[in-house]
Amino acid sequence: MHHKGFILWFTGLSGAGKSTLAEQLLAQFKSSGYRVELLDGDEIRTNLSKGLGFSKEDRDTNIRRIGFVARLLARNGVIAITAAISPYRQIRDEIRALSDHFVEVYVECPLDTLIERDTKGLYQKAIAGQIEHFTGISDPYEPPLNPEVTVHTDCESVSDSVARIEQYLMDHDLIGDP
Amino acid sequence: MHHKGFILWFTGLSGAGKSTLAEQLLAQFKSSGYRVELLDGDEIRTNLSKGLGFSKEDRDTNIRRIGFVARLLARNGVIAITAAISPYRQIRDEIRALSDHFVEVYVECPLDTLIERDTKGLYQKAIAGQIEHFTGISDPYEPPLNPEVTVHTDCESVSDSVARIEQYLMDHDLIGDP
Repeated sequence: MHHKGFILWFTGLSGAGKSTLAEQLLAQFKSSGYRVELLDGDEIRTNLSKGLGFSKEDRDTNIRRIGFVARLLARNGVIAITAAISPYRQIRDEIRALSDHFVEVYVECPLDTLIERDTKGLYQKAIAGQIEHFTGISDPYEPPLNPEVTVHTDCESVSDSVARIEQYLMDHDLIGDP
Repeated sequence: MHHKGFILWFTGLSGAGKSTLAEQLLAQFKSSGYRVELLDGDEIRTNLSKGLGFSKEDRDTNIRRIGFVARLLARNGVIAITAAISPYRQIRDEIRALSDHFVEVYVECPLDTLIERDTKGLYQKAIAGQIEHFTGISDPYEPPLNPEVTVHTDCESVSDSVARIEQYLMDHDLIGDP
């Protein structure tokens, strides 16, 4: 067996780099022949959560659904990568408590830097009040207190962050040596 | 490899025996050490579809969600068993078209027999108009035109039905010999 089933749960503000890291790891795991799925926030909203909005209740429901599917995959030996903002600590911890192997990766980037970059122009709109419930601006983000890995995307390269995540997974026997 | 990933999709009227057959196969596959999940209609409504009702649109959405999760599992080598009524042919065929290995099992039982048995008292209530959108009474059921297996639960035993389904799966190299 080259890997175990586990959940690799990315959390962080919009634009911090969750999807970039998730996609990079997805590609590497696939090229290693691993069984892996990426449950992206947008894909899940389309396929499982159409009709839900961005109130706390709806966000919690959306995240619980991602957690439910990720657990089904992980307990069958699949690596389930999730990359939704997942702003509320309690729901992340609820999913952690229900999972055998849960690896939380906090994708940390200062809000100032994200507002400055603003690659999609979303922060500007949120600050102007054109987007409601925008995490970090008009909605809370609760960072993890004890994440398995924290990556600092303002000051480390994508490949450095990926390498540190892989190192954690190897050190804990979740994946084999590449 | 002892089995492939595939979707075993039960469809049929309420009370026809979908869950009984699904649970029996789940137990047997588990005892063979197979990777298998049962996506039961009620469990999915709780975890993925809370808030959806029983209009055609809501039913279709619910069935599409089951199909989405079943596909994620099956394409990662897991046997995904589903046991929702799934009354509409078009949605079942839509999921079939998106899946690599889709085995539709039509659990056939005449409506008269189901009304007579009425183990949960639901048909009586539906006939009395106390339950809306009840499949077979006040809502349509569209039987499959070319199911991989049809079982006749009015005149064959559970173990006979299970054996015929397993035979189909073995004949098509989806599971190994028991």
